[in-house]
Amino acid sequence: ADPAVLAEAAAHQDRLTKPRGSLGVLEEVAVRLAGSAGVSPWPQEVTGQMVANFLAGGAVANAFAAQMGASVTVVDVGVAGDLPPADGLLVRKVARGTADLSRGPAMTREQVVTALETGITVAADLLAAGARCLVAGDMGIANTTASAALICAFCGADPAVATGRGTGIDEETHTHKIDVVREALDVNRPLREAGPLDTLRALGGLEHAAIAGFILKAAASRVPVILDGVIAGAAALAAAALAPAAVDHCVAGHRSAEPGHRLALDHLGLRPLVDLELRLGEGTGALLAHPLVCAAVRVMHDVATFDSAGVTDKEA
Amino acid sequence: ADPAVLAEAAAHQDRLTKPRGSLGVLEEVAVRLAGSAGVSPWPQEVTGQMVANFLAGGAVANAFAAQMGASVTVVDVGVAGDLPPADGLLVRKVARGTADLSRGPAMTREQVVTALETGITVAADLLAAGARCLVAGDMGIANTTASAALICAFCGADPAVATGRGTGIDEETHTHKIDVVREALDVNRPLREAGPLDTLRALGGLEHAAIAGFILKAAASRVPVILDGVIAGAAALAAAALAPAAVDHCVAGHRSAEPGHRLALDHLGLRPLVDLELRLGEGTGALLAHPLVCAAVRVMHDVATFDSAGVTDKEA
Repeated sequence: ADPAVLAEAAAHQDRLTKPRGSLGVLEEVAVRLAGSAGVSPWPQEVTGQMVANFLAGGAVANAFAAQMGASVTVVDVGVAGDLPPADGLLVRKVARGTADLSRGPAMTREQVVTALETGITVAADLLAAGARCLVAGDMGIANTTASAALICAFCGADPAVATGRGTGIDEETHTHKIDVVREALDVNRPLREAGPLDTLRALGGLEHAAIAGFILKAAASRVPVILDGVIAGAAALAAAALAPAAVDHCVAGHRSAEPGHRLALDHLGLRPLVDLELRLGEGTGALLAHPLVCAAVRVMHDVATFDSAGVTDKEA
Repeated sequence: ADPAVLAEAAAHQDRLTKPRGSLGVLEEVAVRLAGSAGVSPWPQEVTGQMVANFLAGGAVANAFAAQMGASVTVVDVGVAGDLPPADGLLVRKVARGTADLSRGPAMTREQVVTALETGITVAADLLAAGARCLVAGDMGIANTTASAALICAFCGADPAVATGRGTGIDEETHTHKIDVVREALDVNRPLREAGPLDTLRALGGLEHAAIAGFILKAAASRVPVILDGVIAGAAALAAAALAPAAVDHCVAGHRSAEPGHRLALDHLGLRPLVDLELRLGEGTGALLAHPLVCAAVRVMHDVATFDSAGVTDKEA
């Protein structure tokens, strides 16, 4: 391969609107067929800017969705700032972010119910429009802390085990993050003991509640729902705690690098289909798994039986 | 989930024309969304019957190809029996199987060159017809022994490490298979030392030579070629030995359960995109990776840059 071409491809990859390196092995594939780099935290204003990018079709999620024949619906359940109205944006803002989970419940009872209902309604509308498979992803800066808290609560895991480094925080920040998760679990102990809905409202983000509702509606409609990374995994724990049979319709799209994600998937009994070190979010890991799910399902419908094809079966 | 529905789905899965369980995790997915079982060796007559099944569109490879928008071309380079002419079947029979590699070279010089040229021609015809990505798979009963021999020769591995159990052979048969590989390496030592083409003819099957030619033509045309399991991996070692730059255009579609496949991929420096315990062949693992490759490439073309989308980049 021409090193100049590879260098140019790698440079272009770095200009794309995603954390560098966040597509894991897929980035190497893309650069070899035409680069890679590091990662670090991002300012909060990026959430609104990335929503605009989704709506303009310029994000990685859009490219993956186009490849897989999927449509992208952006739902604002709790972005802190105001988003300008746009085609394809569902403004369902429940609150401008949640309260500090390390000081008390993140959501009120009304907020968690409204966010759950929002997820249910969004899924219902997509199903009514003809969707036969749903994909649950998220976009948010730094929403792995609440995910870790939910995973600890639902899986009985220790914060030091379930809390990851997100996109490359240092040792000190990681220690602080673990402390926040531990405080959140302690201060919200009475709510956690009150049941799964109260656990979700105590420790979750609005996106967790909305995705949990989305999963519950998909499962109630017997439609598969492909889960993205640690945020959707944490939301699925809440959904499964509310309605255990919901897991039957969940597929783990991919395995995130976050340690809590492995705990969540083990607890749910789900094995990820794609394991390529993706750490982007946006539903990208779930979107990659979509054709694999379709292929698995298609085998059941399309493949000939030994009888119909006249192929000799092995000895029983 | 209704246990009766799951049982029915599992029973149906068992009637499909593929070794039971050969789709690994994907089978669990399919049954959960609507079963699983064991595996053992198959009679040789199955090769011809399965070719007919491919041509009728009833094999797993057909279902996966339909899902991925790919076409299936069946090339007979060395089936022992005669195959009736059919649309979609390219009869390019070089020989009725190869000679016993444990007694001397598997192929004559003319045979290996003709098989290589066949792979080159098939790839050239597909590219001329507009293909922009090639997928290399195979169908053959028990062609992992030659693969193990090629992997030992090209990677310097020991037969006991590189030789797998195929689809579930017992300890005694496995020991015999290792002995066959060791004998093949010993009896063909002068040819192995003569260079990669002679190594390929000494130890390979006709499918290995044809796939090696297929890879070389794809690489020469700068078109990506997605490799299936251990047979394509062994063929890629031969192609890389003949022309090291060919690896730049190879993508490892999946990782086979065969231990030699890991050695081959490590030697080639390729990381598999899908790792779901598939052990079917037919190009199925490579076909599953096709949308992932397309997605990786599409990111480079479709995703907005920070500048074009007005998204704040992280601090450098």
